[in-house]
Amino acid sequence: MEFKTIALHGRNADPRVAEPMQVLVEHLQRAGIDVITDATGDDDLAARQVTEQTVAKQSDMIIAVGGDGTMLHAARIALQHDVPLLGVNRGRLGFLADITPDEMLQSVDQVLAGDYYLENRLLLLAERHRDGAVDGTAFALNDVVLQRRETGRMVDFETRIGGRLVNAHSGDGLIIATPTGSTAYALSCGGPIIEPALDALVLVPICPHTLSDRPIVVPASVQVEVKVLRRIDTKAEVTVDGHTIGDLLPEDRLIVRDAGHRVRLIHPPGYDYYEILRSKLHWGRDSRQRNPAPYETD
Amino acid sequence: MEFKTIALHGRNADPRVAEPMQVLVEHLQRAGIDVITDATGDDDLAARQVTEQTVAKQSDMIIAVGGDGTMLHAARIALQHDVPLLGVNRGRLGFLADITPDEMLQSVDQVLAGDYYLENRLLLLAERHRDGAVDGTAFALNDVVLQRRETGRMVDFETRIGGRLVNAHSGDGLIIATPTGSTAYALSCGGPIIEPALDALVLVPICPHTLSDRPIVVPASVQVEVKVLRRIDTKAEVTVDGHTIGDLLPEDRLIVRDAGHRVRLIHPPGYDYYEILRSKLHWGRDSRQRNPAPYETD
Amino acid sequence: MEFKTIALHGRNADPRVAEPMQVLVEHLQRAGIDVITDATGDDDLAARQVTEQTVAKQSDMIIAVGGDGTMLHAARIALQHDVPLLGVNRGRLGFLADITPDEMLQSVDQVLAGDYYLENRLLLLAERHRDGAVDGTAFALNDVVLQRRETGRMVDFETRIGGRLVNAHSGDGLIIATPTGSTAYALSCGGPIIEPALDALVLVPICPHTLSDRPIVVPASVQVEVKVLRRIDTKAEVTVDGHTIGDLLPEDRLIVRDAGHRVRLIHPPGYDYYEILRSKLHWGRDSRQRNPAPYETD
Amino acid sequence: MEFKTIALHGRNADPRVAEPMQVLVEHLQRAGIDVITDATGDDDLAARQVTEQTVAKQSDMIIAVGGDGTMLHAARIALQHDVPLLGVNRGRLGFLADITPDEMLQSVDQVLAGDYYLENRLLLLAERHRDGAVDGTAFALNDVVLQRRETGRMVDFETRIGGRLVNAHSGDGLIIATPTGSTAYALSCGGPIIEPALDALVLVPICPHTLSDRPIVVPASVQVEVKVLRRIDTKAEVTVDGHTIGDLLPEDRLIVRDAGHRVRLIHPPGYDYYEILRSKLHWGRDSRQRNPAPYETD
Repeated sequence: MEFKTIALHGRNADPRVAEPMQVLVEHLQRAGIDVITDATGDDDLAARQVTEQTVAKQSDMIIAVGGDGTMLHAARIALQHDVPLLGVNRGRLGFLADITPDEMLQSVDQVLAGDYYLENRLLLLAERHRDGAVDGTAFALNDVVLQRRETGRMVDFETRIGGRLVNAHSGDGLIIATPTGSTAYALSCGGPIIEPALDALVLVPICPHTLSDRPIVVPASVQVEVKVLRRIDTKAEVTVDGHTIGDLLPEDRLIVRDAGHRVRLIHPPGYDYYEILRSKLHWGRDSRQRNPAPYETD
Repeated sequence: MEFKTIALHGRNADPRVAEPMQVLVEHLQRAGIDVITDATGDDDLAARQVTEQTVAKQSDMIIAVGGDGTMLHAARIALQHDVPLLGVNRGRLGFLADITPDEMLQSVDQVLAGDYYLENRLLLLAERHRDGAVDGTAFALNDVVLQRRETGRMVDFETRIGGRLVNAHSGDGLIIATPTGSTAYALSCGGPIIEPALDALVLVPICPHTLSDRPIVVPASVQVEVKVLRRIDTKAEVTVDGHTIGDLLPEDRLIVRDAGHRVRLIHPPGYDYYEILRSKLHWGRDSRQRNPAPYETD
Repeated sequence: MEFKTIALHGRNADPRVAEPMQVLVEHLQRAGIDVITDATGDDDLAARQVTEQTVAKQSDMIIAVGGDGTMLHAARIALQHDVPLLGVNRGRLGFLADITPDEMLQSVDQVLAGDYYLENRLLLLAERHRDGAVDGTAFALNDVVLQRRETGRMVDFETRIGGRLVNAHSGDGLIIATPTGSTAYALSCGGPIIEPALDALVLVPICPHTLSDRPIVVPASVQVEVKVLRRIDTKAEVTVDGHTIGDLLPEDRLIVRDAGHRVRLIHPPGYDYYEILRSKLHWGRDSRQRNPAPYETD
Repeated sequence: MEFKTIALHGRNADPRVAEPMQVLVEHLQRAGIDVITDATGDDDLAARQVTEQTVAKQSDMIIAVGGDGTMLHAARIALQHDVPLLGVNRGRLGFLADITPDEMLQSVDQVLAGDYYLENRLLLLAERHRDGAVDGTAFALNDVVLQRRETGRMVDFETRIGGRLVNAHSGDGLIIATPTGSTAYALSCGGPIIEPALDALVLVPICPHTLSDRPIVVPASVQVEVKVLRRIDTKAEVTVDGHTIGDLLPEDRLIVRDAGHRVRLIHPPGYDYYEILRSKLHWGRDSRQRNPAPYETD
């Protein structure tokens, strides 16, 4: 890949974003690169202001500055034209935004010099079918979530894979997560970590009534179908990467499948998924003590 | 496939095994099939008595009669020559032995008529490396388990995938399970269910000290390496499908990878993995009640 | 206790409730007992129709016919005057409604003859404090739940016990459950079972972001305080035994403590909490198989 | 309490223990206190060398220097004569050894001046009954653990409380933990945290085969009985606070009950159980990110 035009993306109303973004603009322009941006928070940003559509069409790479939330948003812009993404974190290391500000320029230079690791991430497409038509679609880099919407009643729903019944569930809902999303909400609900290289998705029941109703990992090639069962007093809604796309009525079907597209992430050399896991999950730092020998002093 | 020679396998000292086995011998012989067996518990069994090696070499299919344990054993015989396996359960439905006695003859006839579903199951190879050489290997259809061997002390160990450090763990040990094994011991330790069609394995820490030390699902193509860390008073051993293959010293390495072979399972038409899951995990039968509406009487 | 006046309670629009209720009325009247009811579904019910207030004031015992939901509702009537409660289930055995229809008359006769077991169950009082005043209270026999109310964002909140900070949490919310409620929603969220004889309550985080944010069991004598932290885009609400009592703003405080009252349950002789647990949780019926010996056929 | 004679306890072969111990000896002697010790690792320690029995009989307080393991050992010495315990940690903060080295002298002075918080911790007594007699007993400050002893087979066992059957379990074993032990091994096996002020114990199944076999919290006043069921190929053993007290045969009974004694812990003013929990469990430090708003940069 050659990076002639690079787009900067981020909420640069935040000075912690605006500052590294300004540094990046100057650095890239000195290297002869055409820098565009859809960021609108800083009038003094010396990059060409364009729309999201232009970013998608014209840029050879998007550098997102912020956190994983910014990366999720940039991914939506990028996927229309398969633009690769580089993520600069403005604070703590992220799962997706894996470059820290102090190594930013060095990492960008390595990438420009062709020294990088390109990774494809699974993207899901969620469709709500209503009255025989598709009524609402969204792409999910993290997860599609069915969740109850009112008070303390459970939602009852059925899951199907490739048309075959998997289970009738009762509980707070269901998460259908990509490997990328497996370390987000799904992990809090008892789901496993899934290595991004594995072409799989995971169905994680949320607080299931039946205690043996456990996460299931399936090939990414399957089509998942979810149907809410009729029950007095419960309502369910669907959220995709944290955004509601609407309610799900008993007459509706939620269909989730591989979107076809992949999100292309650019990592600087030395990228190590497990190192990020260890950092984010504080592995190796738990200090409880379990029945040490009498004289083992810690 | 043509089934000219069929081997029967099972612990026919148990009358609940011997009886269906006898019925099968007569049924198959009437159909002109050469029936051999390595079962030794019943002298009157009208099948040709052979060794396990002959079973592996000469049979076009092995019918195992018993439970999942019998299937695991039959799988070890079968894999040397890729012989497909059919499982007849002598009692409750099994994950692997999925034909019930009362539908036995009908299912066998369907299979003989070519009406069956052939499924490949991942098989792992576990190797203990000691003093620079491989010292102990075993095939795992379910799982390879590292576990502490003495008293109440934790075992400390490191995991690597493709040479890269995953984590340093403390706890009761680690399960490396196939999709087949994901519904066995791994499920009791918090692991996910993995659909057998997915070419993946899962690392499940057993009672980990660090609460964020969670199951990780990885492609089956990776090589997993486990090393015990030196610590006073702990000993660790490795078991494969429930059988000890020896201890693991800090100098040793446990290497687990795809065995290359697959176990070939024959299922009668109508086989449904999720139906077995629902049956074995009692899905849909939990009857606790969660904050019903005041007048919902159950 | 002498049972001169007995109240029947239940949703007798349901024939499965109306029928045993009618049987009970006749049976109790033959025994010379004054039978009253607040049930309104069946004009032919030969019991004196009264209000809930009259039930509470005049009855020496309330017999609730239905499921655990009916028992929860009857408990609210009963607690105002400490009326003891007997529960007849119209279908499957309940945690609270522990008399099956076919043993109903025999059990009732035993109770009338003084042969019964009286059990006190902890009741919690939930108060929402707003603008320096108590604005909304409710009694909880099962649980007080703080839960997020919109889309896919987490709710951030702090818990205090006796004024001391316990933790700052992020996630789907928090359950504060009695021992009675420990087998309801709290169990689905990873909480322990608490024997009803133990004067304790449990705080169970719902899908907590931090994986080490685990259930805490504390004496029932403590006062629990919950405060929602200000965060864009999240809203939280409080439900008590499944019914919403309103939202919880960052300025509000949710105070939960022992209500003082106990719910008095009457059990027929032979009552066994663990037998109910075994029945409701299907203990002893799981049939997965874990690495059996090669020839153990199941 | 008046502290005329103070015993120092710790593995002072470790310089990180010997040094603070030496500082303590001098500090206490300057205050006119008679300092004794059962520590044997440092000949130059200016304290009177005595046996553990003398420590128990003569000291008004034991100061244990080390980690929680040292505290567990000191507790065994202390309980014979109800001597209160103060714990100095030589490294990271402990659950029991809650004074850090740098605040050691200040905390000790506060305690000597009568400014402290005295806390009683539940102690369990484990008895193995064999051939009609008690054959092996031990005190548990953390936990009594039944665990399988060989290979990969499950252990089957029954639990009884007050003579009534609780459950028939299959799995890796069972933990019976005090509130103190609830944050040790039991927490790794899915048990809840139990506040030490609550007079309760918890039964935590280890990797149970039945997924609904969950932790149960019961009053400390009950007697727990465990019986191993006869099964080919499995052996079980009992460990108490991490030390094996022997195997458990199907003919044996393991009886666990409140030891009567309490372990008396002395804490400096400002002691806060929840602060220790937050520190040990890294609460508030998890940094995964869950579906942030598009522009929430972290």
